[in-house]
Amino acid sequence: MPQAIVLLSGGLDSTTTLYYAIDKGYDCRALIFDYGQRHRREIRHAVAVARRVKVPYHLLKINLPWKGSALLDPNSRLPITSHKKIGKKIPATYVPARNTIFLSFALSFAEAVGAEAIFIGANAVDFSGYPDCRPTYYRAYEKVIKQGLKSNKIKIITPLIKLTKTQIIKLGRKLGAPLEETWSCYAGGKKPCGVCESCRLRNMGFSAIM
Amino acid sequence: MPQAIVLLSGGLDSTTTLYYAIDKGYDCRALIFDYGQRHRREIRHAVAVARRVKVPYHLLKINLPWKGSALLDPNSRLPITSHKKIGKKIPATYVPARNTIFLSFALSFAEAVGAEAIFIGANAVDFSGYPDCRPTYYRAYEKVIKQGLKSNKIKIITPLIKLTKTQIIKLGRKLGAPLEETWSCYAGGKKPCGVCESCRLRNMGFSAIM
Repeated sequence: MPQAIVLLSGGLDSTTTLYYAIDKGYDCRALIFDYGQRHRREIRHAVAVARRVKVPYHLLKINLPWKGSALLDPNSRLPITSHKKIGKKIPATYVPARNTIFLSFALSFAEAVGAEAIFIGANAVDFSGYPDCRPTYYRAYEKVIKQGLKSNKIKIITPLIKLTKTQIIKLGRKLGAPLEETWSCYAGGKKPCGVCESCRLRNMGFSAIM
Repeated sequence: MPQAIVLLSGGLDSTTTLYYAIDKGYDCRALIFDYGQRHRREIRHAVAVARRVKVPYHLLKINLPWKGSALLDPNSRLPITSHKKIGKKIPATYVPARNTIFLSFALSFAEAVGAEAIFIGANAVDFSGYPDCRPTYYRAYEKVIKQGLKSNKIKIITPLIKLTKTQIIKLGRKLGAPLEETWSCYAGGKKPCGVCESCRLRNMGFSAIM
């Protein structure tokens, strides 16, 4: 069985991605990050998902003391964006180089265990305007792998990159992913706030298929 | 003054690079990593160098639980390579994706504080065969910045990339860098072992100018 590393946040997209990778026959290991996100609650959901499918995982704590994001500062205000404006510009919840950091650890993990693929649930359609969710970014990252790594054949697989949120939910359900147990809200409360970008995108996705 | 992030390990190359960046007029901040290296002693030297030049720094602890390198496992044997064979192949001290991880944090730091450059003391001449020390790797990484970051104009500057170890030492001395206070040995002992690749490269560099 080919091996893969799956980046798992505990949200809708990464959970669907994990189920997709398993469905495609990969022997998966998950990588979960505690990076100081205000919605630490998602970590618990990520761990629960990994355990449910019996996928070994590492939970890594990383420190970004320079912050630079509303997602890392519980005292800052989260943007309340209307549905139409989501994705039009880079929001305050953008974390500088977050996916670049996550991928770099995934690469290290993949090289060390001999995995041939890294799965990430990035999405460029119903997304929040993050530059590190675009296909061109992932193609550029693969060139870094080709040039700078020992195992220069590791692929980055982004199965959701061209799907809408509704299509992702349909795919997740088809694969039997426990979508109701995932966590998307950025606000950090005990219940989803319903108005942050992440809640809105999730709710839009679900309401379209009800 | 333009701002820069300098990756600082406490060795000869990164110390010279920091002095170079300061000399070029950059307002520098240093980034030091505790990544489980067996030669943790280098961290102390990195901190001492940053303090000496009054450069603010972050010391980040990162966890690479999958290891995959003789440099992360104090029980493994360090390769004892003859002078002639150094650089011919990727050695056991290669840490999977290490520079890719370091650069990703430097990028995040640079974006958050508005720095326009990242300095790294990589060297492709008298080096140890690491793929992430080659110029092509850094050019590929700059494309990742262009595609996936908010501040897509951050440059990666590698002032030592084409210098021999002897040329680096000469440059460091010219800039007043405290080279004698740097630490290169991989072995993790209280004194340099003199036979690991890093000691050999350092000693070769110094002996050529004595």
